[in-house]
Amino acid sequence: MSMAVYDDIMAKYREVALTESVISTMGWDMDVYLPPKGYPLRGEQLGLLNQMRQRMLSSPEIGTLLNKAESKTEYAKLDATQRRNLYLLRRQYEIMVKIPEELTGAISKQATKAVGIWKQAKSKNDWKLFEPELAELITLLRRRGEILMEVRNTPTLYDAFIDIFEPKMTQEKISKVFTELRDDLIPLVDKYSTIVKDMDFSFLKRKVPVEQQRKIATALCEYIQYDTTSDQAGGRIDETEHPFTSGYYDDVRITTHYHEDSFTSAFYSVLHEGGHALYEQNFPHEGKFQPWGDSASYGLHESQSRFVENVLGRSKEFISYFYPTLNKLTNNTFKDISANQLTQAVNKVERSKIRIEADEVTYSLHVIIRFEIERDLFANKVSVADLPSVWNEKYEKYLGVTIQTDTEGVLQDTHWASGYHGYFPSYALGNVYGGQLLTAMETKLPNWLDLVASGDFGPIKEWMGTNVHRKGNLYDPEDLLKQITGEGLNAKPFIHYLTAKYKKIFD
Amino acid sequence: MSMAVYDDIMAKYREVALTESVISTMGWDMDVYLPPKGYPLRGEQLGLLNQMRQRMLSSPEIGTLLNKAESKTEYAKLDATQRRNLYLLRRQYEIMVKIPEELTGAISKQATKAVGIWKQAKSKNDWKLFEPELAELITLLRRRGEILMEVRNTPTLYDAFIDIFEPKMTQEKISKVFTELRDDLIPLVDKYSTIVKDMDFSFLKRKVPVEQQRKIATALCEYIQYDTTSDQAGGRIDETEHPFTSGYYDDVRITTHYHEDSFTSAFYSVLHEGGHALYEQNFPHEGKFQPWGDSASYGLHESQSRFVENVLGRSKEFISYFYPTLNKLTNNTFKDISANQLTQAVNKVERSKIRIEADEVTYSLHVIIRFEIERDLFANKVSVADLPSVWNEKYEKYLGVTIQTDTEGVLQDTHWASGYHGYFPSYALGNVYGGQLLTAMETKLPNWLDLVASGDFGPIKEWMGTNVHRKGNLYDPEDLLKQITGEGLNAKPFIHYLTAKYKKIFD
Repeated sequence: MSMAVYDDIMAKYREVALTESVISTMGWDMDVYLPPKGYPLRGEQLGLLNQMRQRMLSSPEIGTLLNKAESKTEYAKLDATQRRNLYLLRRQYEIMVKIPEELTGAISKQATKAVGIWKQAKSKNDWKLFEPELAELITLLRRRGEILMEVRNTPTLYDAFIDIFEPKMTQEKISKVFTELRDDLIPLVDKYSTIVKDMDFSFLKRKVPVEQQRKIATALCEYIQYDTTSDQAGGRIDETEHPFTSGYYDDVRITTHYHEDSFTSAFYSVLHEGGHALYEQNFPHEGKFQPWGDSASYGLHESQSRFVENVLGRSKEFISYFYPTLNKLTNNTFKDISANQLTQAVNKVERSKIRIEADEVTYSLHVIIRFEIERDLFANKVSVADLPSVWNEKYEKYLGVTIQTDTEGVLQDTHWASGYHGYFPSYALGNVYGGQLLTAMETKLPNWLDLVASGDFGPIKEWMGTNVHRKGNLYDPEDLLKQITGEGLNAKPFIHYLTAKYKKIFD
Repeated sequence: MSMAVYDDIMAKYREVALTESVISTMGWDMDVYLPPKGYPLRGEQLGLLNQMRQRMLSSPEIGTLLNKAESKTEYAKLDATQRRNLYLLRRQYEIMVKIPEELTGAISKQATKAVGIWKQAKSKNDWKLFEPELAELITLLRRRGEILMEVRNTPTLYDAFIDIFEPKMTQEKISKVFTELRDDLIPLVDKYSTIVKDMDFSFLKRKVPVEQQRKIATALCEYIQYDTTSDQAGGRIDETEHPFTSGYYDDVRITTHYHEDSFTSAFYSVLHEGGHALYEQNFPHEGKFQPWGDSASYGLHESQSRFVENVLGRSKEFISYFYPTLNKLTNNTFKDISANQLTQAVNKVERSKIRIEADEVTYSLHVIIRFEIERDLFANKVSVADLPSVWNEKYEKYLGVTIQTDTEGVLQDTHWASGYHGYFPSYALGNVYGGQLLTAMETKLPNWLDLVASGDFGPIKEWMGTNVHRKGNLYDPEDLLKQITGEGLNAKPFIHYLTAKYKKIFD
């Protein structure tokens, strides 16, 4: 009885969480199976569901209940997890209530327009077409950012955007770590892109029929214990243009795209999405339908997908273990290639222009470039008109490539057109977090690579489950890191891991 | 501006209709692709969505707005369609508001329990196990029926149940028509079950691989112009244990089940569901998100599915047209069988015990038995304990079969365990409506069978579109019939059609 106020809030939040899970399934269906004619209807359905979610979250009842629950006598009754739930809900509520509906609508409308024009601009290599739309969008985003700055009490405007994806992370901390990372990665890129230059990895283009790739995908999911086949399965694999993960707890689905002349594309996207899926499936059971029953941040999510894709999936040990299965499922297409050669091939370092095609060493540099540009943009050190030239300079300087067209340059990603400013850092933070998590894991599982080599992913999954997955959103990302590793954000472990791994594979 | 009240109601109803369409997609996903572990979550999601729908429909705002809109001055502003919308919404609102939530909950709980025990009872052939659960459910249903009787002003208790599925239809009208139908069908069964007795139709069991059957299904959908393949498609075919149709306007999907040793099973389920799908896809565009943008009744829906499955799909003309395609898609599995033999085989009449396996002639008798039992049950002429013996007597008398076990008798269907009393008549009404529609269509398209034989389904679809599909729920079923055919419910046209067809095929 004494918990009445708190229980009332959680009963209301349960409806929010369920509505979000419905939105997720309806979104999955849209990308996977919706008949083409059904798109406008799906738009209306998702529009209503999102509106319902918003109405629930920003309802005056929630406000009143939060005030009551935060009163001294009520708050004193709550344990740490319950307080975290209130904190997380208060955060959502404040943001929802403080940002005028009119502004949210204007941003959404302008982003839709900007994405449409960005597509045209990208296909025509016409930055000037896109520039005014992006400028207009950023003007609106600044208004939202200023409100977020106040609600979330962030030191700068750009911090308010970062905070959406990485709560309490700051550009100051990220700048420090990314600069270090950048300066350590550049010589690694120099060294290994030179070493692999004359190696022949053309066997990666050998044809692997989709039917065989489907079986490989299932085998990969079995390895990481993401169950997609048994009568207890809580997952499944489908096909879409762009791979993604979607779901909630006992119903978490991944998608992939099979290219017959590049089987590693689906191979690594399945491992990547599988890493996301493991996180989602292993959220704390007791946090279901509560604010803390969620991921700690986008970067933490990315740490899980990149850990499974790269740290596990591109390791010599994993490839050696999986090698016989690959030969069996492809009828010996790669029989004449050794596991070592395969390992080198999937770890090839290349000075590249396109982020989503980048390897493990260069990937973070692509992200750091975007971070530096966003940071300087919101600090008014760079204008929208400057973006192409700033972009090209940084690519020359950090990656040693000369961008020839804006299509392969500043226009390559959809994020800015969509208004997802502040999102990019999370990708590279995923690598940094992953390095720190790995170091902590090694103190408990020093033989983890032997486990990988023997096909026993269980203890590794269990370690991640205990330390990351089942912690849900109990802590902000850096606090969680500190709990697990004893220190805050630090690029060293990732650099250390990468250096050691490349030495082992290529030297 | 003068339409403000009416427009407000429609804006509210739009959310109801959209929520229902989300429920439909989430239900489809549950049966088709949901990972097994996700069932409890899906139950919670559907529970919330149904609760939201209920809250919207029975909200005090709806009540107030309806009262305002029905006031003399407001009502005078509305056209017939708008008045129909108000009528339909008022009907839903009254039912929702008058039936206590506690009773709805109790029925739903008891039905869930009864279905569970019905499954056990059916597998163990143990009627006594099921009897008390059914009795308890019927006690609760009677309470709901008494409220419905008052709200809908029906002459008897059973009429209140019929009215849920066939608005304004009565047991008196149905009894008269079903008795006539029964008395005309029995001699037809006698005659044709004797004629076919020594014919060899074992070729229907020849193996047709699932991959071939998938192509047949697509070809059948193409014939009836239910688009499942083009980049403008508004439909799709998936696989489930029990076939069904689901969706709303531009996103209407069917499912089927492929049996390799009985290709006609999927063949006719695809045509059946395709008939439902055509109806759903062709609801009046201007009625989308309005109460009248829906089917007129379950029986009308069934008339469309049975028309496509039987009247079209089992006609000599259709089979002759489709015969070369069938041979092509099955690599000539039926090359040695003539189109005539195929036509006879799929029209085989058999004294059967199981409704869902029944042919076109006996099917209605199975339904009439259930109707008579329900009618007498709610009139207290038959008790729950009597059901097995009454069932067996009627099967002996009408179908000439001796029921050996309750599993193949009174326990065969899930409807009563689910509390769907009053639903059965709609199945046979579908046949009766279909016969009447056919007679009306023949006056406009006397050459319709020539069109079928030449593969030109367009004019037939167009006639159904104009007369049935695009009328949506503008009229109650018998009023719609009168508009189209000039008369009320009448079994003669169906009997006439069936007699002529069987004469043509077998005599």
